[in-house]
Amino acid sequence: MKLEREWITGFVDGEGCFHVSINKNNTMTMKVQVLPEFVVVQHERDIKVLYALKDFFKFGVVRKNHGDRYCFRVRNLSHLMEHIIPFFEKHTLKTTKKLNFLRFRWIVHSMVIKRYHLNPEGLQKIISVKKRMNRAL
Amino acid sequence: MKLEREWITGFVDGEGCFHVSINKNNTMTMKVQVLPEFVVVQHERDIKVLYALKDFFKFGVVRKNHGDRYCFRVRNLSHLMEHIIPFFEKHTLKTTKKLNFLRFRWIVHSMVIKRYHLNPEGLQKIISVKKRMNRAL
Repeated sequence: MKLEREWITGFVDGEGCFHVSINKNNTMTMKVQVLPEFVVVQHERDIKVLYALKDFFKFGVVRKNHGDRYCFRVRNLSHLMEHIIPFFEKHTLKTTKKLNFLRFRWIVHSMVIKRYHLNPEGLQKIISVKKRMNRAL
Repeated sequence: MKLEREWITGFVDGEGCFHVSINKNNTMTMKVQVLPEFVVVQHERDIKVLYALKDFFKFGVVRKNHGDRYCFRVRNLSHLMEHIIPFFEKHTLKTTKKLNFLRFRWIVHSMVIKRYHLNPEGLQKIISVKKRMNRAL
C-alpha cells in the first residue's frame, strides 16, 4: 500500500496524536523522563495502514496498543526532529491538532537543541508547555 | 482553508462515515425510508474543517450533531451519486472503511438506477447489504 503525503496529513488530522508524557524515573538526571511520541492508533482490522506508515517513514514501530487496537509509534528524538516534524511543517495539518503539533515541536526542539529536560528551569518550561497541550485538546 | 483531494481521503479514512439508516415512515411507498448519508463529525473547535469540506464539494450542510459536535452531511441522492461516490472511486480509501463505501455505493446506485427501495424484493436486498455494512464495522 503506497501512501500519498497529503493522505497522511489528512489521516493524522483525524487519527494521529502528538503526545508528551512526563514520568518519574530515578535513573534519569532530573529523576523524570520526558517522552515525546508521535502515535497513530487503529483497530487491528486496519493494521496494514500502520505498516504502510512505517514503510513510508522508514522508521518507527507497529505495536499492540490495548485490546484490539494497534499503533504506529515514533519515539526516537532524531526521527521526530529530522523527519516527523519537518514532514508536518511541509504538509500542514488543517485541524486544531496543529496547535498540539507546534507545542510538541517546541518540546522536541528544546530537548534536542537546548537539552532543556536536563536542567530544572528547562524542565519546568517543558512541563508548562505540555500542560497547554492537554488544555488545547 | 483549501483542501487537497488526498487530504480529504485521508481525513475521511479517519473521521468519515458512509451510513445508511432504514426507518419506518408511513408516508413512503414501502412504509420505510432508506436514508443513505455521508457524514464527517468534528468537535466544534474544528468546525472550520467542516465548512472547508462544504466549500470543496459545493453542497451538503454543516449541522449540530450532538453535544459539542458538528457534522458535514450529504443526503441528496444526486450529490451522493454524481459527486461523493465518484470522488472516492477516484481517490481510494486506504482503510477497511472502503468496504463500507462499496456497500454504500451499491445501495445508492440501486436506489437511483433500479429504484430498489420502492419494491419489496429490492428493499430486502438493500436491508441485507445494509446489515453487512454494520457487520463490517
